[in-house]
Amino acid sequence: MSQDLDFDRYDRIRPIRWTGDALELLDQRKLPFEVGYVRCEDSDAVAAAIHSLTVRGAPAIGIAAAWGVVLAARQVDAGDGAAALGQLEPAMQRLNAARPTAVNLAWALARMRRVLVASGEHWRVLLEQEAQAIADEDLAANRHMGALGAALIEPGSGVMTHCNTGSLATAGFGTALGVIRAGVAQARIARVYAGETRPWLQGARLTSWELQQDGIAPTLVADAAAAHLMKGGGVQWVIVGADRICANGDTANKIGTYQLAISARHHGAKFMVVAPSSTVDMDTPSGDAIEIEERDPGEMFAIGGVRTAALDIEAWNPVFDVTPYTLIDAIVTEKGVIEQPDEAKMRALFGS
Amino acid sequence: MSQDLDFDRYDRIRPIRWTGDALELLDQRKLPFEVGYVRCEDSDAVAAAIHSLTVRGAPAIGIAAAWGVVLAARQVDAGDGAAALGQLEPAMQRLNAARPTAVNLAWALARMRRVLVASGEHWRVLLEQEAQAIADEDLAANRHMGALGAALIEPGSGVMTHCNTGSLATAGFGTALGVIRAGVAQARIARVYAGETRPWLQGARLTSWELQQDGIAPTLVADAAAAHLMKGGGVQWVIVGADRICANGDTANKIGTYQLAISARHHGAKFMVVAPSSTVDMDTPSGDAIEIEERDPGEMFAIGGVRTAALDIEAWNPVFDVTPYTLIDAIVTEKGVIEQPDEAKMRALFGS
Repeated sequence: MSQDLDFDRYDRIRPIRWTGDALELLDQRKLPFEVGYVRCEDSDAVAAAIHSLTVRGAPAIGIAAAWGVVLAARQVDAGDGAAALGQLEPAMQRLNAARPTAVNLAWALARMRRVLVASGEHWRVLLEQEAQAIADEDLAANRHMGALGAALIEPGSGVMTHCNTGSLATAGFGTALGVIRAGVAQARIARVYAGETRPWLQGARLTSWELQQDGIAPTLVADAAAAHLMKGGGVQWVIVGADRICANGDTANKIGTYQLAISARHHGAKFMVVAPSSTVDMDTPSGDAIEIEERDPGEMFAIGGVRTAALDIEAWNPVFDVTPYTLIDAIVTEKGVIEQPDEAKMRALFGS
Repeated sequence: MSQDLDFDRYDRIRPIRWTGDALELLDQRKLPFEVGYVRCEDSDAVAAAIHSLTVRGAPAIGIAAAWGVVLAARQVDAGDGAAALGQLEPAMQRLNAARPTAVNLAWALARMRRVLVASGEHWRVLLEQEAQAIADEDLAANRHMGALGAALIEPGSGVMTHCNTGSLATAGFGTALGVIRAGVAQARIARVYAGETRPWLQGARLTSWELQQDGIAPTLVADAAAAHLMKGGGVQWVIVGADRICANGDTANKIGTYQLAISARHHGAKFMVVAPSSTVDMDTPSGDAIEIEERDPGEMFAIGGVRTAALDIEAWNPVFDVTPYTLIDAIVTEKGVIEQPDEAKMRALFGS
């Protein structure tokens, strides 16, 4: 299945570029109107870029953080990995604190720590290899998940997605957008609807732009129009990514995902979560234990310097929500697919 | 109940002003950043203002259309109302065609036609009196509905509203926003959440601004955040207006209303529709028969001249949806309240 796809055509967008001495991040705050990279020469610049959403998407911020550790290592003089770890810990803490909800950030940093603990004098090169491996494995996982997820979709289906889960959010190809790419290539998907995804408009700005590069013409819809679209029969699957999948299958993802899941169930549309195993957090038992990031209300008051709301009002700006496992029809990871997920099925696939 | 309210404090915003020789419409496309009126000196200018959303809100466009007929009459030389009607009919057709979904437009024009048919040589003054009566009755209905709706709300409740249903959308005080004003005054409502209401941002721009004038501090939320808010227990009632209420209680209202109703039911929050009887259309049996206006996709691509979406993409921009009566807990009109509405209860209150 996945072998049929010409993956190279999907890999023209590279949000994260390692130059050998700096990390270049495609500035997603300005896309698609300006295409430019922010150059990070130390780990705190990477942390700031993660916090400001210059780079975003759960897998992408994990990868960026791993390169951030490599940059931090430039400032460290240590004879072995264990000694380096002590010196790197403050920078790693600052990277980890850049955003709270996506587990991929902590996961990538944990991998970097493990390499340091296990490595001797060659810790520097092993650390850089690990960062590259995190990126390479993410790309491979996405390509595999594309095939696994697409296989669930009946030919001729309409699908709806939310936020951006494509090359921009990952090392390439994408999670939910990877499934959509594979599904379109296989003619399983006849029509793609992209929700705007307020307040950051990732759907309007990023997903629409990415799919255009592939020759796929998505139809943009207001977030509030999803249920009306489903009532008309336009959507067979809602396909989304994830920022954290708990031990019972509860899934944190971009604000609005939960509302889509409720509407999908109400209309008999299916709901698919696509994420690499780096997004699975078996240490968090359920969604109740996830910290939901709330960002500056100011993000809801203006777009590109143009005011969109009355002055001096209050706003509530949670940027994630939790979809309970009971509303999820399939969780697709590179390790396999879990249909009608629950804790027993999660533990069977991911261990304790 | 309603007598306790100092209504004058709510009547400072006047979206529709009749000067005696022109209709002045507060330009709602530019609020709250610019407060200015568009002056209409003939009925086609009124039709254009309705089409362009210079004036908006189901009751308000009915009132504006009535004044549009008065302006059209300035061009007519007829000895009695019946003769005038024939000459006015083309202008009335153009007013009616300005927007398709809200029934108040057709309802107001039907009232103007009936006056013409019944009036003799004094048709001109009777026509102007009828336009004023339509506005005056709307204001009185809103004040009465405020009391009726507020009485349903338990003290200390959180409520969520959508779009703008206040003075800006009516002759004054508002429908859903009238209930919210009364509920806040009575301390039944402790917290008001306003959905942004993409793509026109009526919640962010208009409702937030209106409530500020009253000293009520609403909390703005993204449309996609409503379910997450409800899950946290923040909402006891969703309170919305209507553009058309069918014989069975099915209700057309701003896009996103249906999604809120589904989420409210999922979380055990109650759902209230507030609209004057001019919005009730007993000739339309159910929501399936309502024409849903779809506007220019360009409305989703830019805000205030700033691009918000990728170039050259498709968008679907339905501006209303239909909430089935089964998801509605109360329909509040000036004629009374229908709880758990259905066709039998609708016919009992509104006749055939």
